[in-house]
Amino acid sequence: MATFQKLAKQLLESTVSRNAARNIYTTCKRCKAKIIDGKAMALDLQEEVRIEVKVLVDKGDRPPHLSAVLVGEDPASQTYVRNKMRAAKFTGISSETIRFDKSITEKELLSKINELNNDSGVDGILVQLPLPDHMSEKKVCNAVVPWKDVDGFHVTNVGRFCSDMYSLLPCTPAGVMEMIKRSGIETFGKNAVVCGRSKNVGMPIAMLLHSDGMGETEAGDSTVTICHRYTPREQLVAFCKMADILVVATGIPGLITADMVKEGVAVIDVGLNKVKNPETGKYKLVGDVDFEPVSKKASFITPVPGGVGPMTVAMLMKNTLLAARSYIPYDKGTSTKDSDGRKGSRGGKGRKKGGGRKKG
Amino acid sequence: MATFQKLAKQLLESTVSRNAARNIYTTCKRCKAKIIDGKAMALDLQEEVRIEVKVLVDKGDRPPHLSAVLVGEDPASQTYVRNKMRAAKFTGISSETIRFDKSITEKELLSKINELNNDSGVDGILVQLPLPDHMSEKKVCNAVVPWKDVDGFHVTNVGRFCSDMYSLLPCTPAGVMEMIKRSGIETFGKNAVVCGRSKNVGMPIAMLLHSDGMGETEAGDSTVTICHRYTPREQLVAFCKMADILVVATGIPGLITADMVKEGVAVIDVGLNKVKNPETGKYKLVGDVDFEPVSKKASFITPVPGGVGPMTVAMLMKNTLLAARSYIPYDKGTSTKDSDGRKGSRGGKGRKKGGGRKKG
Repeated sequence: MATFQKLAKQLLESTVSRNAARNIYTTCKRCKAKIIDGKAMALDLQEEVRIEVKVLVDKGDRPPHLSAVLVGEDPASQTYVRNKMRAAKFTGISSETIRFDKSITEKELLSKINELNNDSGVDGILVQLPLPDHMSEKKVCNAVVPWKDVDGFHVTNVGRFCSDMYSLLPCTPAGVMEMIKRSGIETFGKNAVVCGRSKNVGMPIAMLLHSDGMGETEAGDSTVTICHRYTPREQLVAFCKMADILVVATGIPGLITADMVKEGVAVIDVGLNKVKNPETGKYKLVGDVDFEPVSKKASFITPVPGGVGPMTVAMLMKNTLLAARSYIPYDKGTSTKDSDGRKGSRGGKGRKKGGGRKKG
Repeated sequence: MATFQKLAKQLLESTVSRNAARNIYTTCKRCKAKIIDGKAMALDLQEEVRIEVKVLVDKGDRPPHLSAVLVGEDPASQTYVRNKMRAAKFTGISSETIRFDKSITEKELLSKINELNNDSGVDGILVQLPLPDHMSEKKVCNAVVPWKDVDGFHVTNVGRFCSDMYSLLPCTPAGVMEMIKRSGIETFGKNAVVCGRSKNVGMPIAMLLHSDGMGETEAGDSTVTICHRYTPREQLVAFCKMADILVVATGIPGLITADMVKEGVAVIDVGLNKVKNPETGKYKLVGDVDFEPVSKKASFITPVPGGVGPMTVAMLMKNTLLAARSYIPYDKGTSTKDSDGRKGSRGGKGRKKGGGRKKG
């Protein structure tokens, strides 16, 4: 018995010192994070959407319809749109890709969007970004009516979710929250750090993590720190080390290294960077997190690719379903000089009174 | 000379030890924060508004007009509205208080707001909160058209400033940012901690502190941590101790004590609490910060009363001026099923193209 204990102690010490020497941050308690399988989770979510679409169709309704607007020939954009169309097909959502040459004027594009806005056969409109330099992405995204804005980029949708009202949420932030919830990562009262303050990703994630869990957006109740390009390096490290949940969306490959995180952190890597291997000359996709070493300290981690990406696509399908079923109580009022969010007594067409965002 | 140095050293040591013994956090470098005089700063701002109003009137335009809607007899609300009307008078803004008995129905109130919306003689509409329990504050605030929403509570305005677009900003957050700027408190790359996550105060302050300083909202570029009721006490202390700028808006008198802040912090106290002196039985107004001890460690501090309060009123005047001059490029488009933020090719009436928020 004494010998066994002695051996165990030796083994423990040798492990600790060997790891310390190699600067690999393992303990005897946990040697590997649970890798969150974004692909599998997205498939689950798509399957749920598929069942709900089937219920609709079985009732005799037409399936939800998603129109994707694609301008130019950017290969990455083409891939993204193709993936979205594939997911639509899987879920039974009918879809179309409307392609334009990159020479299209902003006015022509806005006119097409207006046509889709007024087409009662279209439930969701998605404008694939980036757009060519000669047009304003803000203007084009805000041209989609809020209740068909399945990307959640319209200023009305931003105002709604920032005010903790039901809305079509931006897909990536919604996907991140869904991954956190489905993985069983606790958010209540935890320290969450969001690296990146973009208005489409970092900001909404920070909003959904810190807001009231009992509110309409069913947010996280975490204490949230937003770090960004002007956060001094040493402060970034200090905040990351305090994080129970670390969401990284900076576009800087390998920004987060193992020495910057604490044991047991849950890491969500939103980064998607194409980096060249200097030896082979081949490109590969990596996130913003130094995956291997960090995964040895974390309790949960998302891989890149196969993490947040597929969840983003799945949330787009969910949004299209929500839009088709008018789950979000938008005011589609018809008086002049109106604006959305003004819930007057007129009551919008197709508005489902008392309806709320579907729990997913 | 030797004797002088010896004496100085003794004096220094005795000061340090005495302070340490008394647990008062002073150093020899700084014994007192600069107290930010909110009243004086608000008067400066109002004077600037007054001059601009005078320019308008001298040109032959009518003065800007502010309509305040007051429901019920709440004494605090009456005082607030009275102060706002007084500031309007000072700045040359014409104003009226529209009073309703607390028995008014929501429908009647919405109908009155709609009338003000359509009245071209009204530039700004302010609904004094709180409203009676039988109506929805969200619904009523969202009934004001965004371009007359001088309180900055409309979902379109929230969406706009959260998206870093020009907007009528909520008055208290805008006042806090203005105080920080006018006091010369540096925000770029600093650690800011916001205690309180209310959608009217804490959230917008966090948004304005962390966002891009080169953007339309001219935000602070700080690293921002949002703490709230579910932030564990020890985490709250840890974050507050890291803060270069500490904004407190919790409604908890004396929440922030001297042991929770670091030397040289800039403290903005948004709290306004009526507390009873158990000995005298008299009430007095206090903030969320334990003023005297904290002011001995801070570099800047705002008093309560006389800090953020007057600035809030001044920002309301500025917003009314901005609304009257159509400085914010809202789309007041008239097509059906439109929504604000959709900047189509129609061009809103009264919209000043390329106009931006006035730097103040």
